[in-house]
Amino acid sequence: MEKSEFYTLQGYRSKNQTTITASMEDYLEMIYRISQVESPITVKQLASSLNVKPSSVSKMCSRLKNEQLITFERYGNIDLTEKGSSMGKYLLWRHELLESLFKMISEEDFQLEQVEKVEHFIDSNTLKHIETFLQSTKKSS
Amino acid sequence: MEKSEFYTLQGYRSKNQTTITASMEDYLEMIYRISQVESPITVKQLASSLNVKPSSVSKMCSRLKNEQLITFERYGNIDLTEKGSSMGKYLLWRHELLESLFKMISEEDFQLEQVEKVEHFIDSNTLKHIETFLQSTKKSS
Repeated sequence: MEKSEFYTLQGYRSKNQTTITASMEDYLEMIYRISQVESPITVKQLASSLNVKPSSVSKMCSRLKNEQLITFERYGNIDLTEKGSSMGKYLLWRHELLESLFKMISEEDFQLEQVEKVEHFIDSNTLKHIETFLQSTKKSS
Repeated sequence: MEKSEFYTLQGYRSKNQTTITASMEDYLEMIYRISQVESPITVKQLASSLNVKPSSVSKMCSRLKNEQLITFERYGNIDLTEKGSSMGKYLLWRHELLESLFKMISEEDFQLEQVEKVEHFIDSNTLKHIETFLQSTKKSS
């Protein structure tokens, strides 16, 4: 057994402090997803899409606004900033790649829940490998 | 877009309350891993293998003992119970399956960190699909 290689999940978390939490990613991904179809977005619409209360959306939108990811006024609409749009695009790409991978593995028994749980922990490097892997599998089939 | 399908990570967590946390899983997996090579296991040994302080190990071992997963006395050795051994075996199987999958995808650029982050969120159903997928890929190569 190779020593000193293993860390706990908590150990990794404290090594890589980031201001964007998993919840913020979920919200931003959904805002970007909806914005592809319609804009601007309302709190009610976002709450319904994420199965959360409008009060939770308001609270989270204030945090996303603090990170300059969206523009948002209380009781007003939600709009992505350039930074938010760029990050939202990345998050949706990440989601779709993982969804494709899990669908390839689990076939008819695919569970969206599994993608939504792991996506926050997959880094851009692994995503690029997944993209290449999926393309090569597509070609060979 | 299909509505009502999406939840946040936090949403999934509150839907599936469990007494075993990701940290407890990390410790139990490592105890099982070491127990395959030597037994009984000391606090110092476990702390070194997981890159944590002995005081953190003592605290976590008390929690694992409360769940009847190990036997453990303060300043004493750590031993798996039958329940702990069975769960440890499952956790190591989960880890090894995901390691194989990530190695297949990322090849030389494989990062153990990615496995250790996502393993806590992959359920037994998906694991069975991964096992079948890996076996079928092995056969066809």
